[in-house]
Amino acid sequence: MEPKLFARYRSAIVDGLRRVLAGEGPLRNVLRVHVGLEDETGASTCALGKLVRPSLTLLIAEEMDGDLETALTAAVALELVHEFSLIHDDVQDADAMRRGRPTIWSRCGESQAINAGDLMLTLALREAATAGEEVLGRLLEAVIEMVEGQVLDVSFGFRWPSLDESTAMIDRKTGALFRCACDLGTIVAEAAREARNQWNVIGRELGRAVQIRDDLLGIFGGEARLGKPIGTDIRRRKKSYPLLLAMADASATQRRAMEEALEQPTVSDEAMREVVAMMASLDVWEAGAAQVNRHLENVLSELQRSPCGEVGLAEMTEWCESLRIESEGGPR
Amino acid sequence: MEPKLFARYRSAIVDGLRRVLAGEGPLRNVLRVHVGLEDETGASTCALGKLVRPSLTLLIAEEMDGDLETALTAAVALELVHEFSLIHDDVQDADAMRRGRPTIWSRCGESQAINAGDLMLTLALREAATAGEEVLGRLLEAVIEMVEGQVLDVSFGFRWPSLDESTAMIDRKTGALFRCACDLGTIVAEAAREARNQWNVIGRELGRAVQIRDDLLGIFGGEARLGKPIGTDIRRRKKSYPLLLAMADASATQRRAMEEALEQPTVSDEAMREVVAMMASLDVWEAGAAQVNRHLENVLSELQRSPCGEVGLAEMTEWCESLRIESEGGPR
Repeated sequence: MEPKLFARYRSAIVDGLRRVLAGEGPLRNVLRVHVGLEDETGASTCALGKLVRPSLTLLIAEEMDGDLETALTAAVALELVHEFSLIHDDVQDADAMRRGRPTIWSRCGESQAINAGDLMLTLALREAATAGEEVLGRLLEAVIEMVEGQVLDVSFGFRWPSLDESTAMIDRKTGALFRCACDLGTIVAEAAREARNQWNVIGRELGRAVQIRDDLLGIFGGEARLGKPIGTDIRRRKKSYPLLLAMADASATQRRAMEEALEQPTVSDEAMREVVAMMASLDVWEAGAAQVNRHLENVLSELQRSPCGEVGLAEMTEWCESLRIESEGGPR
Repeated sequence: MEPKLFARYRSAIVDGLRRVLAGEGPLRNVLRVHVGLEDETGASTCALGKLVRPSLTLLIAEEMDGDLETALTAAVALELVHEFSLIHDDVQDADAMRRGRPTIWSRCGESQAINAGDLMLTLALREAATAGEEVLGRLLEAVIEMVEGQVLDVSFGFRWPSLDESTAMIDRKTGALFRCACDLGTIVAEAAREARNQWNVIGRELGRAVQIRDDLLGIFGGEARLGKPIGTDIRRRKKSYPLLLAMADASATQRRAMEEALEQPTVSDEAMREVVAMMASLDVWEAGAAQVNRHLENVLSELQRSPCGEVGLAEMTEWCESLRIESEGGPR
């Protein structure tokens, strides 16, 4: 069941996205299909993602009595930046499907996918500019940080990062927009410095929890909704955080086996299954789950100290609970 | 000899670019090398382009008594947007060299080139934001228009556009930034509506002149500085304006021959030379040159009516003269 937090602002965010991506200009329909506002025939659909980031901005703004119209503008711009990043990521990772639909590059070619991302980013920033200088400035910082994270992630295709480097990458690639989501809420609410800092920490911890959770599911599978079969990220040769956890604990022989598997041009079914089994035997699921849960607990303890009302606290707690991973019992 | 207009503001613009692209953040050195501020060893160089667009902004702002510091910020942001477009264009056109140097994708791979363009665009817009809301708003419109032009240009890879469609594409892909260069100058100078409109027309006509000129040289070669051997754009299978001029005047047999040559996966030396010879026999050089010169004359006649001082008028005239093409005598 979907946490209430995401139901609360959904229709307002969807309307905002529809407004920014409206019209018959070049590629606008492609952008609407990508986001899930329209199917390929042009018929209206509602096949969007969970809209986590903009919901977070709106919740915080509302809890702290900010102007909700400005918050919505900021939130929509933030979601569009996230969508921009997905379009270019899909080109870079050569992912043919997303949310059960063909990605833009696989429908329209790489060149138009690059253009589509450029257009999405520019439309996002134009929207942000209408929410005022501080919102725009904060979002621009987040885009720079996120792209820098993507630069690091791509560079990991050619070398083995340390766990610290991996965390630094996550804090940028994923954390940048989560922290920005929180900051946009507190900026719109003109919150005091202390509250801003608290929500910023919450954003960082949420980013880590969400990313490591996603990485675990990308290796051990198990969540039907994400549509990730076992070993997806091993096949994609992603040096994700759980793989680095495994490398840190592996014997020299195991380490060599994992290196060899990931350094082939393509990873065979057999090699993939061997790596996943090796990672399971090294208790990576348990170790990763413990980290996810620790970051979620950090969120909750920071929330207790923040000026968040009962409703907000309940909805944030419900969301965090839904992200929690059973560390015992191993991969489902 | 380089027109004086480009010498006048060069060092100020270069300093501005250096400032925005400074630092050791991810890919910053790659961006500096792309722009021509640094060589691959990190040593400072000055191998930049002509900086036409920012020079135009600064000239207009100065002629109309605008604040030169704000104009410089706007001009630097505009040039960075142009550089962003080159980085993604090079990926899309698979061009391995630019300004005599390897392009970013050919040095660092396509993924990092996409990231590098994204980063350049975001840094450009962050810079523009410091020049005020109107400058930023105008630049955002120009980026959207330019990307839309690029979308059209890519779509021409799969069909034959009309001459009108080609002009509409040029007005966006190239014209957007030339018109923006002029508008940024008049915005900073807080010029009256009439002057804004005049300079906007000048921008549009300059964009057309520069692009058609470039397209002619991309087919008939002839300018050592651009480093374009004969038939470059035919080899790249670009349905550029001069090729469409040829198609409009060609016999059915000639048309078929050109279509066949351009629709092969690669264009042989022989096919390329045949197409160029056919275009020459159809007087495309003369027709294209006449158009370039007509657009330049439009610039000059609009300039006569605009509130431009003597120095500005002289420098703009000198630049336009340097762009003029001898229509008789054929390709050099």
